[in-house]
Amino acid sequence: MADSMKGLKRTHYCGEVTEAGGEAVVGGFVDRIRNKGGVIFIVLRDRTGVVQLLFNETTDPAIFEKAASCRSEYVLMAKGEVRERESKNDKLKTGNVEIFVTDLRILAKAQTPPFEITNETNVKEELRLKYRYLDLRRAPLQENIIKRHQLAKVTREYFYENGFLEIETPMMMKSTPEGARDYLIPSRVHPGKFYALPQSPQIYKQLLMVSGYDRYIQLARCFRDEDLRADRQPEFTQIDLEMSFVDAEDIQECVEGFVKRAFKEVMNVDIPLPLPRLTFADAMNRYGSDKPDTRFGFEIQDITDAVKDIDFVVFRSAVEDGGSVRAINVKNGAAAYTRKEIDKLVEHAKGIGAKGLAYIRWADEPNCSFKKFLKDGDLEKICSAVGAEQGDLVLICADKTKTVLTTLGAIRLICGKRLEVIPDDQYNFLWITEMPFFERDEENDTWVAAHHPFTMPMEECLEYLDTDPANVRAKAWDLVLNGTELSSGSMRITDFELQQKMFEALGMTDEEIQAKFGFLVDAYRYGAPPHGGMGIGLDRLAMIMCKAESLRDVTAFPKVQNASELMSECPSAVDADSLDVLGISVTAKEEDE
Amino acid sequence: MADSMKGLKRTHYCGEVTEAGGEAVVGGFVDRIRNKGGVIFIVLRDRTGVVQLLFNETTDPAIFEKAASCRSEYVLMAKGEVRERESKNDKLKTGNVEIFVTDLRILAKAQTPPFEITNETNVKEELRLKYRYLDLRRAPLQENIIKRHQLAKVTREYFYENGFLEIETPMMMKSTPEGARDYLIPSRVHPGKFYALPQSPQIYKQLLMVSGYDRYIQLARCFRDEDLRADRQPEFTQIDLEMSFVDAEDIQECVEGFVKRAFKEVMNVDIPLPLPRLTFADAMNRYGSDKPDTRFGFEIQDITDAVKDIDFVVFRSAVEDGGSVRAINVKNGAAAYTRKEIDKLVEHAKGIGAKGLAYIRWADEPNCSFKKFLKDGDLEKICSAVGAEQGDLVLICADKTKTVLTTLGAIRLICGKRLEVIPDDQYNFLWITEMPFFERDEENDTWVAAHHPFTMPMEECLEYLDTDPANVRAKAWDLVLNGTELSSGSMRITDFELQQKMFEALGMTDEEIQAKFGFLVDAYRYGAPPHGGMGIGLDRLAMIMCKAESLRDVTAFPKVQNASELMSECPSAVDADSLDVLGISVTAKEEDE
Repeated sequence: MADSMKGLKRTHYCGEVTEAGGEAVVGGFVDRIRNKGGVIFIVLRDRTGVVQLLFNETTDPAIFEKAASCRSEYVLMAKGEVRERESKNDKLKTGNVEIFVTDLRILAKAQTPPFEITNETNVKEELRLKYRYLDLRRAPLQENIIKRHQLAKVTREYFYENGFLEIETPMMMKSTPEGARDYLIPSRVHPGKFYALPQSPQIYKQLLMVSGYDRYIQLARCFRDEDLRADRQPEFTQIDLEMSFVDAEDIQECVEGFVKRAFKEVMNVDIPLPLPRLTFADAMNRYGSDKPDTRFGFEIQDITDAVKDIDFVVFRSAVEDGGSVRAINVKNGAAAYTRKEIDKLVEHAKGIGAKGLAYIRWADEPNCSFKKFLKDGDLEKICSAVGAEQGDLVLICADKTKTVLTTLGAIRLICGKRLEVIPDDQYNFLWITEMPFFERDEENDTWVAAHHPFTMPMEECLEYLDTDPANVRAKAWDLVLNGTELSSGSMRITDFELQQKMFEALGMTDEEIQAKFGFLVDAYRYGAPPHGGMGIGLDRLAMIMCKAESLRDVTAFPKVQNASELMSECPSAVDADSLDVLGISVTAKEEDE
Repeated sequence: MADSMKGLKRTHYCGEVTEAGGEAVVGGFVDRIRNKGGVIFIVLRDRTGVVQLLFNETTDPAIFEKAASCRSEYVLMAKGEVRERESKNDKLKTGNVEIFVTDLRILAKAQTPPFEITNETNVKEELRLKYRYLDLRRAPLQENIIKRHQLAKVTREYFYENGFLEIETPMMMKSTPEGARDYLIPSRVHPGKFYALPQSPQIYKQLLMVSGYDRYIQLARCFRDEDLRADRQPEFTQIDLEMSFVDAEDIQECVEGFVKRAFKEVMNVDIPLPLPRLTFADAMNRYGSDKPDTRFGFEIQDITDAVKDIDFVVFRSAVEDGGSVRAINVKNGAAAYTRKEIDKLVEHAKGIGAKGLAYIRWADEPNCSFKKFLKDGDLEKICSAVGAEQGDLVLICADKTKTVLTTLGAIRLICGKRLEVIPDDQYNFLWITEMPFFERDEENDTWVAAHHPFTMPMEECLEYLDTDPANVRAKAWDLVLNGTELSSGSMRITDFELQQKMFEALGMTDEEIQAKFGFLVDAYRYGAPPHGGMGIGLDRLAMIMCKAESLRDVTAFPKVQNASELMSECPSAVDADSLDVLGISVTAKEEDE
């Protein structure tokens, strides 16, 4: 049996033992042990940091012997006198002191862990995830989890102070055929029927506005059964909010206040307000993206006019087909981009769907990929149009405008990273407004709602609903941070006639409407205030604040790409009785794993 | 189309308009409308209360006409001058003023709701749940939801201030065959395998202690697929906490601080600390319950000694069989309990498993059901033993002690309610400690763990593990409030040898251990600090604070007894494709509903 902690009560966390004098009782894990014969140093670790325990020739021999028996990751409790250290360690907040131990308890022994518990590690992530409980002992992960806690804390404080109520909405709800795939839960009491896990509390929060709750917030777990990309988890947490008697700007102003407060409290970073705004159209034109990273330049410039007299078929045919010729000026890019490197960019552009890239590489001399089509002054005209100087690289794309923008947007990001012009301690927030209302579904040759079908169109676009769907913009907006979409928001339709018109514009029949949105549609018949809201990805925000590379680094027990958890090995088979009672059976052949 | 709120911005919530002078802009639902010809009063309601809007002969005629067109539940925004009322209403915080409206917008019209939105209602609950979004407009429900928000808020504040980190644990986890039935989630990526919704984050929070997080809190959604009793929901919220380097008393002290804080902040009720404590054995002996309601007396008293000379076969055989004779004195119970009423109690006692009840009903004269067996002085002896006086009713049970206690415990509660001696504005908390470690599984003639199998036995009971399971008490405790079990807690086993011994005592094989607790068992091999924790039912606590009669009254979107939600009609059928992709099929015949 291990020692008991009876009679000892912790007085300090390890990281708090900073001043000599007096006694301290600490508890923690053995981080390191150095046995120099007559002197033993044990570095004890808890979630606040480490402190050094000292055992020497004046230590009670029984205690000395016990200390000598300790190994890494043993769990200790130690009482002793806090003394000034002989050799101080300035890098450590407890580096001036050590504890001369007068009572030592080994509360638990530990097997040698499968990997060392160190700050830096190059242990394979799979092994770390299998032993997640050990991985979670590593200080950088602990800092992330603590920072995430702080973010959630300040989120609630801010919204509560601003009159928001946190209201819990169901996790077991009706399966709705919209959006991503639902995770389903078979019902035992109603065999053959299913609940679904929420993709978001959207429907419930709108109902809460119908019910007059006015300002709702929830840190809500959401679920999507998607094939996971590197930065997705099947379950994630959303700062979910909804406000009544407001318009878009009121919601944005409120969220701006949150952003400022969160970055100040969690990061001590000042975010100047108001946050900059770009319409969707401007964002696409300038950055080729609806979530532009504005921490660097290389903006897209329209040079259709500057090249209109050049007899280069690529440019000419693009313009003749109603497209355009646009360029980015990769400042100081000539040195980094040799001919070979440029070829790679061109291949990348082709992968996105462009026919290619033309370029002007201005190292010593401007070297132009379409030189033979140029007349005197043409080169200068282009360079002047995009502000290119010696040392720069101009990349040009000619095609349908949408293709041009998407291509240059992607190439811009690659060049920005390559030239290391993206500061990693800068936080550029950006509102993207006036999102398109409809999206073209090319496959089915129809227009589909780009957002939740209850999203309001902008008043001035109402007239185009029937005639020109491409021109209808939504009262919907995104919040972008450093090129990542953090959050989406919109105003919701509360007017019946308009809602009916919207459904019709989306080609829905009354039966479909009733089947998909029945009780929600009904609710709006009884009066609803103007309302709208947002959903802010808490995990993603935490990830950025932690400068983490993956959501797994800010999630205590994450799942991997195939939606399994390596530690508990879930999902797992269940016994036949459990399925029987649910009235379901497995039809698929089980995988071998 | 409805009016727009353009140009208006709310300045006050309705309930905040309390002082005459100046302008106010309010928004809300029409609560009542009184049209007296030349004067119209509209009472406008939001979540803070109501305010009166005034329209009269000096009102702009267009506005007056618009006001006249309003109906109940219309959504309005109104701007106007706050004036002192002619006829004041003292019952209302806004009762001294009214708003003389100069701008009125009808933001949404409303159909006549299926029931009136009133504080008191006798509308059938089923109808209210079908239109939950309307039911939720009722002020008493809004107060409950707001109180629940306040409770969650103060919970987080308290535990955060005390060094707890809120860490989110997975909702999609491994199915464990312990406890209640799991809700299962079929995996699409791993056909034939399943996730389970957590019955509690127990395993994860223990792992977080293994990982050194030291103090963990989470307001965690928990799920149990049980046949619902009146006071259960398939999903509920638990204040889930775990602490390291502590013993039971440290955890209890911490939770006591929470209880005091929560009742002060949410209810303005002072809870004196420390909370009283009873061992499980004492609670059973005195109250016949492991969750006694201590707001009233009628305690159980052992009168075996006082009746030992009475030649009544019921008493004698009970004692001879190793049982006992015990009684409760229902103070002033004689008047309420006629002979007929007592018969009902006896029937009730038989329903619980007792052979019957003997009694002494002392109205004018002591009237004793076993009078013919009494000798001189016997009656006085019994009355004196239980402190009975004229007006009292003494109820006596003789049987196996366990049966006696359970019976009298139940009868005590019935009598307490009947005599209305239970004050409803008193909050009696109570710790029940030293819970039994094992429970007898009569069916399988074996001992099973009464708690989580990682629960620590009390040190002094270790020696009985093999020899006398009935005598082993656990380091486990409950927190009881007014006869309701609010919370359970325990210290967890962190010592390997002891854990092994426990499993053996429970008759488990190594294979079973590995299958049931594999990764958790492994985790403890790498060292864990002493730790323990509790789970406090947030819904139940909110229910008590709201003096609500059902969890449904403190849950925004509750499910009913058969685990369905009447508003959205979930669970519901899903299309065959959705099941196909999950590799499952429905075997049960679908119900007709």
